[in-house]
Amino acid sequence: MIHLINPKFTKLQVPGIRIFANEVAKYSDGINFTIGEPDFSTPEQVQNAGVRAIKENLTGYSHNAGLYELRQEVSNFFHEEYGFYYDPDTEIVITAGASEAIDAVLRTILSTGDEVIVPAPIYSGYEPLIQLAGAKIVYLDTTNTKFVPTAEGIEALITDKTKAIILNFPSNPTGMTIPKKEMDQIVEVLAKHEIFVISDEIYSENTFHAKHLSFGAYPSLRDRLFLLHGVSKSHAMTGWRIGYVLSDAPLMKQVLKAHLFNSICAALPSQYAAIEALRNCRHTPVEMNRAYIERRDYVYKRLQKMGFEMDLPTGAFYIFPSIAHTGLTSWDFATRLLAEEHVAVVPGSSFSIYGERYIRISYANSMVNIQEGLDRMERFLQRLTK
Amino acid sequence: MIHLINPKFTKLQVPGIRIFANEVAKYSDGINFTIGEPDFSTPEQVQNAGVRAIKENLTGYSHNAGLYELRQEVSNFFHEEYGFYYDPDTEIVITAGASEAIDAVLRTILSTGDEVIVPAPIYSGYEPLIQLAGAKIVYLDTTNTKFVPTAEGIEALITDKTKAIILNFPSNPTGMTIPKKEMDQIVEVLAKHEIFVISDEIYSENTFHAKHLSFGAYPSLRDRLFLLHGVSKSHAMTGWRIGYVLSDAPLMKQVLKAHLFNSICAALPSQYAAIEALRNCRHTPVEMNRAYIERRDYVYKRLQKMGFEMDLPTGAFYIFPSIAHTGLTSWDFATRLLAEEHVAVVPGSSFSIYGERYIRISYANSMVNIQEGLDRMERFLQRLTK
Repeated sequence: MIHLINPKFTKLQVPGIRIFANEVAKYSDGINFTIGEPDFSTPEQVQNAGVRAIKENLTGYSHNAGLYELRQEVSNFFHEEYGFYYDPDTEIVITAGASEAIDAVLRTILSTGDEVIVPAPIYSGYEPLIQLAGAKIVYLDTTNTKFVPTAEGIEALITDKTKAIILNFPSNPTGMTIPKKEMDQIVEVLAKHEIFVISDEIYSENTFHAKHLSFGAYPSLRDRLFLLHGVSKSHAMTGWRIGYVLSDAPLMKQVLKAHLFNSICAALPSQYAAIEALRNCRHTPVEMNRAYIERRDYVYKRLQKMGFEMDLPTGAFYIFPSIAHTGLTSWDFATRLLAEEHVAVVPGSSFSIYGERYIRISYANSMVNIQEGLDRMERFLQRLTK
Repeated sequence: MIHLINPKFTKLQVPGIRIFANEVAKYSDGINFTIGEPDFSTPEQVQNAGVRAIKENLTGYSHNAGLYELRQEVSNFFHEEYGFYYDPDTEIVITAGASEAIDAVLRTILSTGDEVIVPAPIYSGYEPLIQLAGAKIVYLDTTNTKFVPTAEGIEALITDKTKAIILNFPSNPTGMTIPKKEMDQIVEVLAKHEIFVISDEIYSENTFHAKHLSFGAYPSLRDRLFLLHGVSKSHAMTGWRIGYVLSDAPLMKQVLKAHLFNSICAALPSQYAAIEALRNCRHTPVEMNRAYIERRDYVYKRLQKMGFEMDLPTGAFYIFPSIAHTGLTSWDFATRLLAEEHVAVVPGSSFSIYGERYIRISYANSMVNIQEGLDRMERFLQRLTK
């Protein structure tokens, strides 16, 4: 009966990330640089909060928007850390991870024929959801602007059909952040045009050299911004599945419906754990960042020595070197590296065609694995260039 | 910026169930008969499995389809309890509750202009998702056939545009199950036409007089059936958010995409808890049913004495009496009962227009509350008919 399926689905590709992650798991000596989650444990006190909720039978349905207490903590978090305010009553919804938040927002705003601007290379999770809504993704090539979108670049792509822009900084896959000056200019353009701004700031707490800059801090975007966040990356809680959306009350009323009909509410043990993470574990990402910076610096130096060109990442836990000098496509590079050295990286083509001449390496991994994986990469490159 | 939202969203209504549940919570002496979740605790050994997963750091991402071990338990459960087999590798996906399973399946199959047949009165969660897909819900009125759809009734509604039928037995809101003979006839019709069959059997383990009959047991539906299930009702695990879809491998490959892009994977502590529930707690719903049957019988007798007409429910934990004799609309009945006696029931109109002359009473509540709530209802009725 497959011929009766929604034709939009049969066309959708499963992302390349999955393929290499699944393949490398087959090698007992495999080293996996495709990982999109912290290699740390959820903090013990956060674990304990989840355990307490279970033992105290706090595992029935919550309010569809999430526990009020958690929404309050989310509100406090942004107010205290970044100085802007969203009302826990009407402007925050807790979702089953930030991915459900993305889906809920895109469903809420997109109709057939809409266009969505997305600076690329970009995380592969947005495009399928845009396609499912019958909308069109319009890429902004950032490969010549150090992977940072420019205000002019964005403005040049805005048409009558543009419904939204999706921004994801710190960036997956490039590890880049937007400097304040560029951010101000971008905001100026976005405030001028009637388009929604979806800012997926899931890596906000993994910003290395300065405090993260949030689009939530710009009052001129207040009526059009959907701010997406969650505890997955900041508190090593990927499998707990807690994300959240913050937006203006009238918009949020609609997003809440998408969330309610899709998943009723996020898992309760996870909601209670997230309260503890946001309330009492603000130091956790700071500690994780110390390790990330050490690894990033090591990876950067090693890759430079091997002849890769790249910018020093300023956030997230990815590095995105160019492989142009090898003459290989990113897919061939990743396939051969995996087959010959049992090291998995993600081909840049998984992040749109603008990632084609790059690979993504995640350094959310132990130093031992990082060293070993890079040694093998070096061997691989020496053979390549011989 | 609300004028730029997907217009399908602004039209969607939040279900009436929520309104009465939220209102009754404001009364300190309120009695809530709107509850759609068991009033039991999650079994201790299931809790412990969730706790173990947390303490052992098994809280990263799982396979998108869910932990293989859990998919195996789901497969075993249906094989051992109902005698049919789905392959854990390719035919089972674990979702964030059965609601996400419904959403994933409907998105996968529906396109603009499709029709979906739904016997009514019916749970209010399907219609919004059908509307969001641009499809049309076609109700089959079951009020004259004891809330059970007939084969002829279904066949009469099938057109060239019919893409699927949704069945939800044991039924929310009526508490009815489909007898074997009617089920055979329905299956014969469904196998004859090229339409998908979505069977939401979330209340399967709450079947009171005989073993539940599953549409999964009919080989003639194998290539078109989506079987939806979960541990929420059977093991008092609503807030853990674990559901699952079983379907033919080629169909499931598409559903997995909907699930992956929406939520990546279900919460891990919950997945581990569900393994324990399915593997070692098959007795849990049996014990719960003893309590449900006692309460059902009490509620049934009391309502009969008050002059309500209704059928004796054979499953789930709802009873659906007619209020036609009161002359009130179901909305007015529920509103006045709440205001005058602080007892919340769900107006039947929340379950489509075919529920209009009924109310839904959930007896997933303590006997003390049930007695008190019914005493108040009796008082309310005496005043009404004076």
